[in-house]
Amino acid sequence: MIRSLHYSPDGKIRTDIPQGEFILLKDTEGGVLWIDMYGEDKPNYKLILERIFDFHPLSVDDALEKTHVPKVDDWGKYLYLVLHDFELVEGPSASVELMELDIFVGQGFLVTYHTQKIKALERVWESCEWDPRYLKRGALNLFYHLADRLVENHLPVFDQIELGINELEDQILHAPKEDTLERIFDLKRSLLRLRRIITPQREVFHKLAHNDFSVVETEQGYFFRNIYDHYVLLNDLTESLRELAASSLEVYLSAANNRMNQVVKVLTIITTMFMPLTFITSLFGMNFFQLEFSVFTPMGKIGLVIALVCLMVVPTLMFLWMRRRDWM
Amino acid sequence: MIRSLHYSPDGKIRTDIPQGEFILLKDTEGGVLWIDMYGEDKPNYKLILERIFDFHPLSVDDALEKTHVPKVDDWGKYLYLVLHDFELVEGPSASVELMELDIFVGQGFLVTYHTQKIKALERVWESCEWDPRYLKRGALNLFYHLADRLVENHLPVFDQIELGINELEDQILHAPKEDTLERIFDLKRSLLRLRRIITPQREVFHKLAHNDFSVVETEQGYFFRNIYDHYVLLNDLTESLRELAASSLEVYLSAANNRMNQVVKVLTIITTMFMPLTFITSLFGMNFFQLEFSVFTPMGKIGLVIALVCLMVVPTLMFLWMRRRDWM
Amino acid sequence: MIRSLHYSPDGKIRTDIPQGEFILLKDTEGGVLWIDMYGEDKPNYKLILERIFDFHPLSVDDALEKTHVPKVDDWGKYLYLVLHDFELVEGPSASVELMELDIFVGQGFLVTYHTQKIKALERVWESCEWDPRYLKRGALNLFYHLADRLVENHLPVFDQIELGINELEDQILHAPKEDTLERIFDLKRSLLRLRRIITPQREVFHKLAHNDFSVVETEQGYFFRNIYDHYVLLNDLTESLRELAASSLEVYLSAANNRMNQVVKVLTIITTMFMPLTFITSLFGMNFFQLEFSVFTPMGKIGLVIALVCLMVVPTLMFLWMRRRDWM
Amino acid sequence: MIRSLHYSPDGKIRTDIPQGEFILLKDTEGGVLWIDMYGEDKPNYKLILERIFDFHPLSVDDALEKTHVPKVDDWGKYLYLVLHDFELVEGPSASVELMELDIFVGQGFLVTYHTQKIKALERVWESCEWDPRYLKRGALNLFYHLADRLVENHLPVFDQIELGINELEDQILHAPKEDTLERIFDLKRSLLRLRRIITPQREVFHKLAHNDFSVVETEQGYFFRNIYDHYVLLNDLTESLRELAASSLEVYLSAANNRMNQVVKVLTIITTMFMPLTFITSLFGMNFFQLEFSVFTPMGKIGLVIALVCLMVVPTLMFLWMRRRDWM
Amino acid sequence: MIRSLHYSPDGKIRTDIPQGEFILLKDTEGGVLWIDMYGEDKPNYKLILERIFDFHPLSVDDALEKTHVPKVDDWGKYLYLVLHDFELVEGPSASVELMELDIFVGQGFLVTYHTQKIKALERVWESCEWDPRYLKRGALNLFYHLADRLVENHLPVFDQIELGINELEDQILHAPKEDTLERIFDLKRSLLRLRRIITPQREVFHKLAHNDFSVVETEQGYFFRNIYDHYVLLNDLTESLRELAASSLEVYLSAANNRMNQVVKVLTIITTMFMPLTFITSLFGMNFFQLEFSVFTPMGKIGLVIALVCLMVVPTLMFLWMRRRDWM
Repeated sequence: MIRSLHYSPDGKIRTDIPQGEFILLKDTEGGVLWIDMYGEDKPNYKLILERIFDFHPLSVDDALEKTHVPKVDDWGKYLYLVLHDFELVEGPSASVELMELDIFVGQGFLVTYHTQKIKALERVWESCEWDPRYLKRGALNLFYHLADRLVENHLPVFDQIELGINELEDQILHAPKEDTLERIFDLKRSLLRLRRIITPQREVFHKLAHNDFSVVETEQGYFFRNIYDHYVLLNDLTESLRELAASSLEVYLSAANNRMNQVVKVLTIITTMFMPLTFITSLFGMNFFQLEFSVFTPMGKIGLVIALVCLMVVPTLMFLWMRRRDWM
Repeated sequence: MIRSLHYSPDGKIRTDIPQGEFILLKDTEGGVLWIDMYGEDKPNYKLILERIFDFHPLSVDDALEKTHVPKVDDWGKYLYLVLHDFELVEGPSASVELMELDIFVGQGFLVTYHTQKIKALERVWESCEWDPRYLKRGALNLFYHLADRLVENHLPVFDQIELGINELEDQILHAPKEDTLERIFDLKRSLLRLRRIITPQREVFHKLAHNDFSVVETEQGYFFRNIYDHYVLLNDLTESLRELAASSLEVYLSAANNRMNQVVKVLTIITTMFMPLTFITSLFGMNFFQLEFSVFTPMGKIGLVIALVCLMVVPTLMFLWMRRRDWM
Repeated sequence: MIRSLHYSPDGKIRTDIPQGEFILLKDTEGGVLWIDMYGEDKPNYKLILERIFDFHPLSVDDALEKTHVPKVDDWGKYLYLVLHDFELVEGPSASVELMELDIFVGQGFLVTYHTQKIKALERVWESCEWDPRYLKRGALNLFYHLADRLVENHLPVFDQIELGINELEDQILHAPKEDTLERIFDLKRSLLRLRRIITPQREVFHKLAHNDFSVVETEQGYFFRNIYDHYVLLNDLTESLRELAASSLEVYLSAANNRMNQVVKVLTIITTMFMPLTFITSLFGMNFFQLEFSVFTPMGKIGLVIALVCLMVVPTLMFLWMRRRDWM
Repeated sequence: MIRSLHYSPDGKIRTDIPQGEFILLKDTEGGVLWIDMYGEDKPNYKLILERIFDFHPLSVDDALEKTHVPKVDDWGKYLYLVLHDFELVEGPSASVELMELDIFVGQGFLVTYHTQKIKALERVWESCEWDPRYLKRGALNLFYHLADRLVENHLPVFDQIELGINELEDQILHAPKEDTLERIFDLKRSLLRLRRIITPQREVFHKLAHNDFSVVETEQGYFFRNIYDHYVLLNDLTESLRELAASSLEVYLSAANNRMNQVVKVLTIITTMFMPLTFITSLFGMNFFQLEFSVFTPMGKIGLVIALVCLMVVPTLMFLWMRRRDWM
Repeated sequence: MIRSLHYSPDGKIRTDIPQGEFILLKDTEGGVLWIDMYGEDKPNYKLILERIFDFHPLSVDDALEKTHVPKVDDWGKYLYLVLHDFELVEGPSASVELMELDIFVGQGFLVTYHTQKIKALERVWESCEWDPRYLKRGALNLFYHLADRLVENHLPVFDQIELGINELEDQILHAPKEDTLERIFDLKRSLLRLRRIITPQREVFHKLAHNDFSVVETEQGYFFRNIYDHYVLLNDLTESLRELAASSLEVYLSAANNRMNQVVKVLTIITTMFMPLTFITSLFGMNFFQLEFSVFTPMGKIGLVIALVCLMVVPTLMFLWMRRRDWM
């Protein structure tokens, strides 16, 4: 699907422009042409990008072929950028879905290409359809607003992950479930994926902010510095969350050990209490002490008293000894 | 709430200046105008910052919108800084509360904005109200004193955390409690938050000290170098404390293992002592040895002696064997 | 085995060129001479490289002697490169086999040397035999296509390793096998080997992309930038996979602990239930309670009822107590 | 306590110089004035440093106020340095005591300030009192000898720590004591403190060696390079020792696990041997087998033989089975 | 012991040159004088180095005093280098012995000093005694060959360590011995020592290769680049081996845990099988069931059948339950 939008210097906004006009509109002074290509109709996109916009075949291949880390390539008259949006997939596993967004931005045009729906882009597009605010300062400013909306959408994802870690920690310490370990593992994996996006994305905006490119003017650099600051924050957050996730595994191990300790203590207490008792009763069950020791004979009465005293004293002593060792 | 304070070159200090005069006072040669904005009345603050002080809209947005890592932006005629103060929240959990302080400083003015009460700022303000000492060397020197007071307030927080770790270590090694693990985890989290503040804050003063900015003169650089040294120290401390907190988890695991070891040893000793005993008594309880083996028959007497000897010898052997294995 | 292939500027492709002609063909303007040396016939190769191509003896020694990390050496008129291809060895152990590829590339020639079959090279060679597409832009462009094919072959290896980790994680969490630990260890080792290749390989293409060499023209730099981007991605992947492999070990430990916990709980439950029971039966087995307590006497009947009540009540109490402790 | 020492260019050494003469002597060409201030008489020291030597108030504050990481500040006519000496506190805990030494060094003077006795300084002072060897090449050379003696005193401390680690390792592997864990923890803490000193101290001498300062001449740079090399060595040592201390914790855990394993094995062997035995004896203790089965009846004899055979065979089988499992 | 060897430009090789001639021979154009000092006769060596060769006293002290990390110091007319050779000490502990080699190299001379026998040096010396191949290109080229032989001797050491790790891993996973833990610890220590040598040694050759020194000519730089590549490889190897050694500890812990798990399972199975059985037999051993329940009475027969049925059914049920839990 190809959508197009043109802002002419006199303030008019047109949409659904025929492809034939692209070549004329892309270089109008003060105007902005935004082409958004969404989906898999690659041959057609390739044609537009190479023929109409005259982009270098290498950068076009980069854009239409999918797996890339975020980067910015300077091709003189235009910049080619790869950015990523991401969303938390619904469900308990805190897994992150990445969505690639390829961008070509030049003096008078912005071309975006993506195969998944990107919310930030939709919202900027919608507001552009009737409001020239984002458009009147040129294509690069439009791109700035797109990136700004993108980064704004990132923070809630991190908030949710942080929440998830807190919840996990609570679970680990107080009531571990069957899938706790799996969730920790998933969390680590998601954070690794995010880091692989966030760090280079930060570098992209660092480069944009510090005026490495002829396309970007000094004043615009300030704007990108702003976005760069956001990514610095997100990058720090990723690192912190990764460390928290890492220690949650160790805490899990410690907490499991603790619980085992409790169980083994109980086992030991029970064994320590009953083994001597059973020995005593077993002792008086030997055949040597027979009918003569029946409860109705005097010897039996003495024996019974001795046996009962032992059965009282031994566990009491055991109890006191275990108490002194701080077990109960 | 907006507070204002003006020091005129002739040494007079005025407070509660009407907003209308700000624009006149902000550029008096040798004078210092300090505006402190505290709280949430953002629209009004925005007006003052953009209209009266003519700050760039981007830096004003940065200041009034909250989450930022510490940084310094050079806007030519003024510097925009984000710093953070922090305090330990009362309670056992050693959690840290961060308080953002936004600062605009130029030739003749200092504008501070914060949404929480910052003790260091209050103390500087109070002493400024009647004492021109901090004011007479200009706005940047006033800012230096503010930053100096800020960093002075940081060290006690670290001391308390170090104390907390020592206490925890003691607890881990000698008497672990239910919440020990939770406290270790909280500690790690607090130190992660502090690091996220301390490291960029150090960078801010590194930049100020090494004269990257036209606003800062060489002589003033020396002062900021002093504050920079403090942050270097704090940064090293944070790293050291993080490593200590990390190893405290491992020590916890080891100590728990130790205790379990003790318990399992006792279990084994008891089992090893009593299982053979119970077997012996049980052996002589079999029906094969009946009335004829009663203690009053000769055979019974021999049997009893054999049984009793076994009951004495077996545990003694067990005891000696366990002794040789260093268990008791 | 020596193969040769020559593309003359007029578009003709010749193969199996006699060694005597190499010296004439290697410098034809616009032509490309590709010599591929495969196997162990080193003295002959040495002769060709040193006499015919006049390469520096040091670089020739480098090429024919095997162990090297990837690198690029600039020898003025030609570049000497060491690259590595790798393949997963079939079998459960996820071990990686490295294959060194030595490359000399100059204005009009490409010389490759390897001792193992390298699939990427075979495919490029085959397509060159009848298709001048890779040849007509010169030797460096031919090398680019070779490197491009090489990097394309890398990604599936990583995909398989990632799959292996996922499978392992599943195994660890749900049904650990005897060789799980060994596989984790093998995985770590393979990833260490890959990292030792990928990181310097990335640096090689970084250097080629950023025009450090007189042999490489600016336009060609763009192409190598493309390959460099791939290696950046692969490098990130290696790091992420290494971290996942590392945490899988910790998860393994935690999961094993969990299972032990379960087992020990069962042990404790059984012991806790039956020890008191056995004590009670053993108590009523003492000789003091004899014939008079037979089930047919009134006292015996009372005794039996008491005994049975105890045998019912004690396990019930134990059960309730364990339930309160969340064990069942 | 203030000590003073003056070397005049004609070779005379005077000590106990009245404070009034300091101002005259500090700038004599070719002479060296060394003032050593030891203890807490800060107001007086401040007077001397600010009035007589005319040091910048900031550097004087730095010196007299205590906590600092090692650093060197260039104040044009003089250098201000913070160095640290350290000693192992006697006792089992391997804890390290740090001692700050503040130094001002200029063309003709050296001022040292410290609150604890520093052995290296004492020894240099003593030899200076009667031997002009250290003095005749100027104040900076005197400082070099002081630093050289300081670094010489560091190495034995590291040797002792390494010895302590070896001893600990031996203890961990062969006979862990109650305080082993505590000692590991103390060791880690000491090494963290040392690192916080050694790394910046190394940087100080790196700066001195590479002629960043107008006070230091090229020839003198060679001398400081020598000290820098020592600190590089110490820094590497610190890192290595830290890693060894870190792995000693893991080894501790493994060794404890090993011992537990041994204990649990014994428990299992005992249980596995005696449980079946006790069952058998208990079986023949059931009331079904009564008087008729007495050892004097034929049935009883058969029964007894069966029982005894079981009592022999079962443990033998168990023993063989456990042997096959490599337990004994 | 002092050995000497002189190569004169006309191709003659002399050995055992009297010390008096050193001063004449050291500067002959195109000639090479190699002095090798081995052992502890330091005063004599000092004399030669300071008087005859006129080396700076600081570098001479550096050479004769032992502990140093590898480094290269440029003293203008000559280079002073510290390198280390190392060998595996025979025995199971994989410990590494370091041997320092101090080198002075200038236009026409090479002076080496060492206190232990260094194999690489011996072999170069021997071949130099009758073969001018290494000598005819000057002193620096001679040094190159010495360094080349040195690095060639390093690789087998690493191979042996890698072999040792593989063996250890096998031991850990399949048959841990008493000293396994100790060997892992020794291995880690050895690798730490190697890293402390390899990394700075690599830097030495990096500096030599990149022409930082007036003594080294461009062409010679190529040679040192070759050695540098070797050290890069060795450095990577050290890091990889360190990571493998580190994970071997974790694997050890996991494997020990696994074995414990097995043992505890057996313990639990035995307990779970026999505790109920013993309870049942003990139940029928109570005095309530007396003579009347003898096997010869009808009630006794019923009782025995019930008892035997229980003794068959209970373990079968237990077995099935444990099977469902995947324990057997």
